[in-house]
Amino acid sequence: MLVHYPVLDRGGARITTAITNLDVHDIARSAFTYGLSAYYIVHPIAAQRELVERVRKHWVEGAGGLRIPDRVPPLSLVRVVASIEQALADFDSEQLPELWTTSARAESNSLPLAEARRMLRAPARSRIIAFGTGWGLAPEVHARADAKLAPLTSPREDGFNHLSVRAAAAILFDRLLGEQ
Amino acid sequence: MLVHYPVLDRGGARITTAITNLDVHDIARSAFTYGLSAYYIVHPIAAQRELVERVRKHWVEGAGGLRIPDRVPPLSLVRVVASIEQALADFDSEQLPELWTTSARAESNSLPLAEARRMLRAPARSRIIAFGTGWGLAPEVHARADAKLAPLTSPREDGFNHLSVRAAAAILFDRLLGEQ
Repeated sequence: MLVHYPVLDRGGARITTAITNLDVHDIARSAFTYGLSAYYIVHPIAAQRELVERVRKHWVEGAGGLRIPDRVPPLSLVRVVASIEQALADFDSEQLPELWTTSARAESNSLPLAEARRMLRAPARSRIIAFGTGWGLAPEVHARADAKLAPLTSPREDGFNHLSVRAAAAILFDRLLGEQ
Repeated sequence: MLVHYPVLDRGGARITTAITNLDVHDIARSAFTYGLSAYYIVHPIAAQRELVERVRKHWVEGAGGLRIPDRVPPLSLVRVVASIEQALADFDSEQLPELWTTSARAESNSLPLAEARRMLRAPARSRIIAFGTGWGLAPEVHARADAKLAPLTSPREDGFNHLSVRAAAAILFDRLLGEQ
């Protein structure tokens, strides 16, 4: 799940970010390659949701998919929703998925990625992994999560860690689901 | 190193691809986060190289870097060159880097990623890891390589593997250099 609201800006204020076309493509391609079953894109503004719908249709039903058939399966995963609640409403209320959030910041109660990987191996509830655009998910999203995943860490001594959300999602899918 | 020529199109013909702005940003950010020392962008067309130079300067010396200082170190890694040869000419001729190529296709003589990771731990020559845009590097680039890295593999039963080059580079840096 890629969240465009509520997310933070550099100063820590709550903002709504704009849709980035390559977020739709790259994360859909990574999600499908690693076997995820859906890719929710959360945006509260109808015109932005319609933009994603147009992109999805162009590739799944339209000229894009005819030209590049390999894009059809990944873009078919895209579900455009107005809120995190609306994504959860897609599921049977007795089988709600766990919400796992991601962040570039470490916290004491973070779920280690190796442990998260083991959890995904065992049969259990579905999981939604939420990524924030901008400067990351707002605190209230983490507060309602069933788990907050440990951040990817840089091998640099200065710990510099400013991956794009597209890169972070790809690496996390590989850590959690990749063949080792 | 991100190569725009010589690469293949869907039909296997040699083509030159256009610069994608987010390739410059995403791969620079991933490369810096994982401690790489340079990010070569190879393009044979002067106007396309000038485009990348303008992007680099905007973020390293101009208004972009003032607005988002975290982009300065990654974009400072960018080196714009006309050919693979020109990138190699940056190095002392007695200490030429090894050229490692990447591909989505497995071959019998591929270098396993775990072994490549061990090689990078030991002091040795520099290595350039080359990624192809389009449908991948042309055969002559693989033919001159010191090693061809094993492809990332999908956990899917159908083996679907169509990652963006931005995602593939991020995952590969994590496999080769990430903290485990």
